[in-house]
Amino acid sequence: MNYRIITSILGRILALEAGLLLAPLAVAALYRESVLPFVWTILLCLAGAGLLLALGRKHTGSLHPREGFVSVALSWLVISLFGALPFVFSGAIPNYISALFEIISGFTTTGASVLPEVEPLPKGVLFWRSFSHFVGGMGVLVFMMAILPTDDEHSMHLLRAEVPGPVKGKLVPKMRDTARVLYVIYLVMTLVEVVLLLAGGLSLFDALTTAFGTAGTGGFGVRNASIGAYDSAYVDTVVGIFMMLFGVNFNLYYIVLVKRSLKGLKSQELGLYLLVIVTATVTIALNIAHLYGGVLQALRYSFFQVSSIITTTGFATADFNLWPSYSRALLVLLMILGACAGSTGGGTKVARLVILGKAIWAEIRKLLYPRSISRVTLDGERLEADAIHNTMVFYMLYTLIALGAFLLLSLEGMDLETTFTSVISCLSNIGPGLGLVGPTGNFSVWSGASKLVLSLCMLLGRLEIFPVLTLFAAGLRGKRS
Amino acid sequence: MNYRIITSILGRILALEAGLLLAPLAVAALYRESVLPFVWTILLCLAGAGLLLALGRKHTGSLHPREGFVSVALSWLVISLFGALPFVFSGAIPNYISALFEIISGFTTTGASVLPEVEPLPKGVLFWRSFSHFVGGMGVLVFMMAILPTDDEHSMHLLRAEVPGPVKGKLVPKMRDTARVLYVIYLVMTLVEVVLLLAGGLSLFDALTTAFGTAGTGGFGVRNASIGAYDSAYVDTVVGIFMMLFGVNFNLYYIVLVKRSLKGLKSQELGLYLLVIVTATVTIALNIAHLYGGVLQALRYSFFQVSSIITTTGFATADFNLWPSYSRALLVLLMILGACAGSTGGGTKVARLVILGKAIWAEIRKLLYPRSISRVTLDGERLEADAIHNTMVFYMLYTLIALGAFLLLSLEGMDLETTFTSVISCLSNIGPGLGLVGPTGNFSVWSGASKLVLSLCMLLGRLEIFPVLTLFAAGLRGKRS
Repeated sequence: MNYRIITSILGRILALEAGLLLAPLAVAALYRESVLPFVWTILLCLAGAGLLLALGRKHTGSLHPREGFVSVALSWLVISLFGALPFVFSGAIPNYISALFEIISGFTTTGASVLPEVEPLPKGVLFWRSFSHFVGGMGVLVFMMAILPTDDEHSMHLLRAEVPGPVKGKLVPKMRDTARVLYVIYLVMTLVEVVLLLAGGLSLFDALTTAFGTAGTGGFGVRNASIGAYDSAYVDTVVGIFMMLFGVNFNLYYIVLVKRSLKGLKSQELGLYLLVIVTATVTIALNIAHLYGGVLQALRYSFFQVSSIITTTGFATADFNLWPSYSRALLVLLMILGACAGSTGGGTKVARLVILGKAIWAEIRKLLYPRSISRVTLDGERLEADAIHNTMVFYMLYTLIALGAFLLLSLEGMDLETTFTSVISCLSNIGPGLGLVGPTGNFSVWSGASKLVLSLCMLLGRLEIFPVLTLFAAGLRGKRS
Repeated sequence: MNYRIITSILGRILALEAGLLLAPLAVAALYRESVLPFVWTILLCLAGAGLLLALGRKHTGSLHPREGFVSVALSWLVISLFGALPFVFSGAIPNYISALFEIISGFTTTGASVLPEVEPLPKGVLFWRSFSHFVGGMGVLVFMMAILPTDDEHSMHLLRAEVPGPVKGKLVPKMRDTARVLYVIYLVMTLVEVVLLLAGGLSLFDALTTAFGTAGTGGFGVRNASIGAYDSAYVDTVVGIFMMLFGVNFNLYYIVLVKRSLKGLKSQELGLYLLVIVTATVTIALNIAHLYGGVLQALRYSFFQVSSIITTTGFATADFNLWPSYSRALLVLLMILGACAGSTGGGTKVARLVILGKAIWAEIRKLLYPRSISRVTLDGERLEADAIHNTMVFYMLYTLIALGAFLLLSLEGMDLETTFTSVISCLSNIGPGLGLVGPTGNFSVWSGASKLVLSLCMLLGRLEIFPVLTLFAAGLRGKRS
């Protein structure tokens, strides 16, 4: 293991975080709040960065996939360990474990909160909380690559580890350019949403933080009642549509916008994604119609919630914990499914379901006609056995991790619905679950130990499991040798 | 598709069922109850058998894997459609859909019941209910092969479809001999249990029916309070140990008993199976100790329940629905896991978990060291990529079917714990679930439509999915061509 190169990457990440913290510092200053929590955190980040960069000085050799995975997992851990400090220093979340849970929830764009109310918090802290979604949405290392000079061979392994997905898109030959193109699309879409929200009467602060939460498909809001607080069909529609847009594979935007080709729209993943949204929206609307005085009124709430959950954002305009069983069951399934690969959304990804369905059909064909040769294709291109195998291993790991965490959390004696949906919500980076962690509840019901388990789930979910597991496996191996 | 050969197999199965029905008929006569329900059913079976055998007369050609799968799936359907009749004719379960659910639950050795109480039922009907576990436990086609003359080439495909498991054991070259050896082991073990239960003070009727429920890992009892009704630590221990024994791969008994070699005991699956039983028994005992006045007393109940659930039997000596979250959560995980491959138990099978764990480890190794070659072995023998792939496809199908059925059942508006565990309980052939379908509840809470969905789950679970799916796929294909 090339430790120096990893140390140097971690040093740069901390330096980057110090820079990012200037944004909430400015907001705090603007609102005449104490800037000290941010000043102290920035100084600590810089000290840490200096130390790590000094240790990683003069690194030689190249970055192997192994180091790529380990660097990404450690980067997310380090940025969170320091990112939790402003919550503690400001007194917003005095307990460090809870603060860590909150910021991991932010960076992983989960949006699960330990706070019963957010409105009393200082604006600077609220801004940092929402800003972490924006930073985490496209990946912190992608962000680093976009703005700092990096070696392309190194970047490739980092990008692959941080933006996994079942199929590798060949965007641009130069990794740094890729990272930049992705960020420009991301930034422009966020700005358009800010403008549309301002037009809907939101303050600049609310518009910015809401757009951050949408863009990263995070879900932290600045109002206790989430998006429901604005009580506006216009705001619901804007946010609902933008969540859906941020859940689309960014490759498609690149192909349509930069390459000016409509080929990207023929994606089978996009087709299934839209089909699921429409089906879920309509059937849930029928299921909840009696609660909202008709199917048409119900459509507003069902579309928003379906879009919010499938994209793993987690904003709410209604307490879906009170909806009938079918609606709640379907929302749980959407939590597991998640958004498109290559989007800012979490979950197991629609593309994987497409691959899975095709692989299963191929297996049944093989049983029926043992001598036939069946190929699995995605968007006309043949999928290698390795990609299919990897998809299945991912699903299996997702399931095993979910069940393992479920068992660990069950030790607290909470009801099984709360326990199970807490795990799924964190592992798929949603935010709210059902029961005590429903849209009106929060994760403060869990003990510190369970919060750490759930934090690990959020990281595993965001990095699509393998980088974090690699970290453990490398640790085990390191001890042995 | 060779329809004639399938028709002829179905005819034989119905003739066999007519013969099997003589047993409950004799019991009914012995207890001076009406024998008419059985007489009528036998006549209908014989009429059906005559018709099918006439249609399938002079079949030529051979049985392909396709026909093997379809025959097995249809056999289970046909034997259930007729097997439900005694419940209806006797008035025990007047509704045919409910009666069908009950007998499918019997043959698939699920043990889920629609009856709130069983004690008022006629003895003949109770005997038929328990006897269906014994018949279904080893497979109805294996039974047919063991007693009727069959072509060995045909038998192979039938046996493979009915006794699937992730790895094919090469027991005896002649399939008919294999079927007989398996049945002899099965019969002897059942008889030993009957003798031990008689020694514990049970009546012959109770001992026989309890042993049938244990042998098939079914779980139908003849007392309202299941095995708890005997209120005897001796009976609990005997049944607990025998459930565990019937959950072991019968290949191992064959190797140890017939080949007189201890090699069979080195099975990795057996090791994990025992490890899980011990771990679960001890941790659940600790978790429920406060309910039973100490860990030692709690061990009696926890061992029985763990053995009952992991083997997918479903007998109960306590209302585990009232146990704390950890115990309930762990029992649900054991439901999904199930017993050893090649046993009479259901679930996804311990062998598959072993294969899965190894495949995942190989995948992580490949990520860490892309150039290394990693082999997956089971008990020292190399596993082909196909076997691993098939294992994963099975898990994925199990999950998709469970989630799909969960969504369908959620339309009834029952709480999600009842809904989810109803599905898992049926798909893994357990019997009881949690909530309204817990050990003191029953499946009469579900509508006819949901009962049909759950019946399908039981068949899918018992035949390990592929035969039933093949039936659908073949149906689709038949329509197209």
